[in-house]
Amino acid sequence: MNLPTNRDDAARLDGRDPISALRHNFDLPPGVIYLDGNSLGPPPAATAARVEEVMRHEWGRDLITSWNRHGWIDLPLRVGDAIAGLIGATPGEVVVTDSTSINLFKLIVAALRIRPDRRVILTEEENFPTDVYIARGVSQVIGRDVELRVVPRRDLTSALDDDVAVVMLTHVDFRTGETHDMVAMTRRAHDAGALALWDLAHSAGALDVDLAAAEVDLAVGCGYKYLNGGPGAPAFAFVASALHDRLETPLPGWMGHASPFEMDLNYRPAPGIAQLLCGTPPILSLVALQCGVATVAEAGIAGLRRTSVDLSELFISLVESRCHGFGLELASPRDPEKRGSQVSFRHCNGYPVMQALITAGVIGDFRAPDLLRFGFAPLYVRRVDIWDAVEVLRRILADQTWDRPEYRIRAKVT
Amino acid sequence: MNLPTNRDDAARLDGRDPISALRHNFDLPPGVIYLDGNSLGPPPAATAARVEEVMRHEWGRDLITSWNRHGWIDLPLRVGDAIAGLIGATPGEVVVTDSTSINLFKLIVAALRIRPDRRVILTEEENFPTDVYIARGVSQVIGRDVELRVVPRRDLTSALDDDVAVVMLTHVDFRTGETHDMVAMTRRAHDAGALALWDLAHSAGALDVDLAAAEVDLAVGCGYKYLNGGPGAPAFAFVASALHDRLETPLPGWMGHASPFEMDLNYRPAPGIAQLLCGTPPILSLVALQCGVATVAEAGIAGLRRTSVDLSELFISLVESRCHGFGLELASPRDPEKRGSQVSFRHCNGYPVMQALITAGVIGDFRAPDLLRFGFAPLYVRRVDIWDAVEVLRRILADQTWDRPEYRIRAKVT
Repeated sequence: MNLPTNRDDAARLDGRDPISALRHNFDLPPGVIYLDGNSLGPPPAATAARVEEVMRHEWGRDLITSWNRHGWIDLPLRVGDAIAGLIGATPGEVVVTDSTSINLFKLIVAALRIRPDRRVILTEEENFPTDVYIARGVSQVIGRDVELRVVPRRDLTSALDDDVAVVMLTHVDFRTGETHDMVAMTRRAHDAGALALWDLAHSAGALDVDLAAAEVDLAVGCGYKYLNGGPGAPAFAFVASALHDRLETPLPGWMGHASPFEMDLNYRPAPGIAQLLCGTPPILSLVALQCGVATVAEAGIAGLRRTSVDLSELFISLVESRCHGFGLELASPRDPEKRGSQVSFRHCNGYPVMQALITAGVIGDFRAPDLLRFGFAPLYVRRVDIWDAVEVLRRILADQTWDRPEYRIRAKVT
Repeated sequence: MNLPTNRDDAARLDGRDPISALRHNFDLPPGVIYLDGNSLGPPPAATAARVEEVMRHEWGRDLITSWNRHGWIDLPLRVGDAIAGLIGATPGEVVVTDSTSINLFKLIVAALRIRPDRRVILTEEENFPTDVYIARGVSQVIGRDVELRVVPRRDLTSALDDDVAVVMLTHVDFRTGETHDMVAMTRRAHDAGALALWDLAHSAGALDVDLAAAEVDLAVGCGYKYLNGGPGAPAFAFVASALHDRLETPLPGWMGHASPFEMDLNYRPAPGIAQLLCGTPPILSLVALQCGVATVAEAGIAGLRRTSVDLSELFISLVESRCHGFGLELASPRDPEKRGSQVSFRHCNGYPVMQALITAGVIGDFRAPDLLRFGFAPLYVRRVDIWDAVEVLRRILADQTWDRPEYRIRAKVT
């Protein structure tokens, strides 16, 4: 690791980094340092023009015929294939459809159907709450005696008994950025005879996930974070090809039918991953996601991950040296191998401190009760940005500029 | 009814119709007569600019803060309220979310939970297949002995016994355009102690649906047909406010949580219709839908329906008089009161005839085995268009120009 010791040095290192050279693919507003790509990636410079082209020249000119003429009908699988290349999956194993939560519902039920002899969905208290809601939703709706077992992370392995059908975990903790050891945990699930289902919300497009090498069975992920697909972009679902012939979705919609336009009253699933399609896919949002995925693919995951580690290490080192004594406490693992592409610090006035940062143009986010979260996406964040962001943070803490009533007003979305 | 007797007369009637005067809200390609708005509405002229503004100035400039600053977080409810005004619902009874199929899944399960003493989902063979797939999906996944009862339309009333929890029907038949009598069928469902769930896919934005007057319990509908929301636009769900306190979604996602950013491990449903939100909504597609809904709201449903009946009557009358002897047979009800906003004719060479029509710029669609479908959306279809379309159809049939090998090649999407 090569940590710069001053801002010029940081700029020099940026200049030598091929990833930093791709920043022209984004067009961030002036004065903004965007450390919230883990919540919502910014628009690639190409997206607006491409979506406009689809609106004016495909939808507008070719109308309904665009489903064939412009290949809209295959877009969920084509974008899925592009994402497959970023997560160590094979073409035909990933489809873009619905939301992460809906896809999770499909895959938890599918897992229970693949393991009809087992009755437990195992997850951890640290999981993203919506994943737990959905798993509980499955356990409440499904026609079997199913138990949702939610345990603290440290108890996962001991809770993994031979009742467990599926272990459902999020790879990167949304609060602290701590990663699970996907290879080891998947192996433990398999050793216990369970399937492994991973939520890649904070991994896809940021970490060098290798689903094939880890022998992961099922996965879902988010399009609007590190894949830069736009607000509420459609999500993706992965099913290892070895399981395709046992896949059975609980949400059988016409787009997942083997022959949708036969208008057959009997559902016959499309072969492979396409079965997970349900209703008609939202083309405008899908096209935006395609543009976002292209920015990640151009950079390559290995390089992105390398630079992201550099940025995170620099951030931690600068915060600890320059903001010392202001009540910040590192909440993320110090070992970059155990950390995703974000760094979180605790502060007892986390909410107003984050509002002051945002007002000053350094955009991260806040997670209750006291976490300041900062995401490092090297596609548009450089070492100089880290340098400047920490200086802004230092000033806010030193001058206590966060201590204003307007910074305490809670917004709907935090 | 005032049917024009020649093209000039048709143009004169168009000129006197305030609905036809709104055609400037759309920007159809030259040479195209678009009679497929029942499959995919065309883009309103305002949509591309508005979506571009959201991409460049909201997403691009204000980034994550747009969820608050530009009210993205409330958009599903705001667009829902706008749709409520088009279907006789009250603000707060409609939300835009997910796809029609996913919403149907939520509401069928919700209906079974409201009527735990009953075990039958009743629908008809004539229903849109995906609705039947989803209902079967519910019956297969759910933790109760549930029967999906699919009967021919003529047997619906006799099948409505006191085991039926919910009658689930599509208001307008996607093949023939035949409408159900929503008021009468809902009353029959209620008389039998069942809930009524209507799919408004081919109704919303075209027919003067009055859910309140019909005392409908539950409904879903499509954003990309007569609401002009764009390909795969998000769908909507309606729950009568009287049922809100008994509503329980099987797909509990964080956006339907009472307080999503508390990140509480326990799901507490948001009050009212918002509970049906699940994952993060696709903002770009939602904004496009908002533009589409605005075009319908500006015209007003009453006027739209009036002109749509005029257009359909003119089409049937002209086809029957000018295409006589060419093997066309009306498949839609002759009585406009029993017909939606589309007209279908059978023809033994329906597929190549439709391909020839499309090649000649008259865009309808084909539904197996022999249906030519034509949708009449007065927002962008005038009486002169009907006149010209029938003349094109007459020539194709008279000259047998449909009888070419290239018109027999089946496309993926028909």
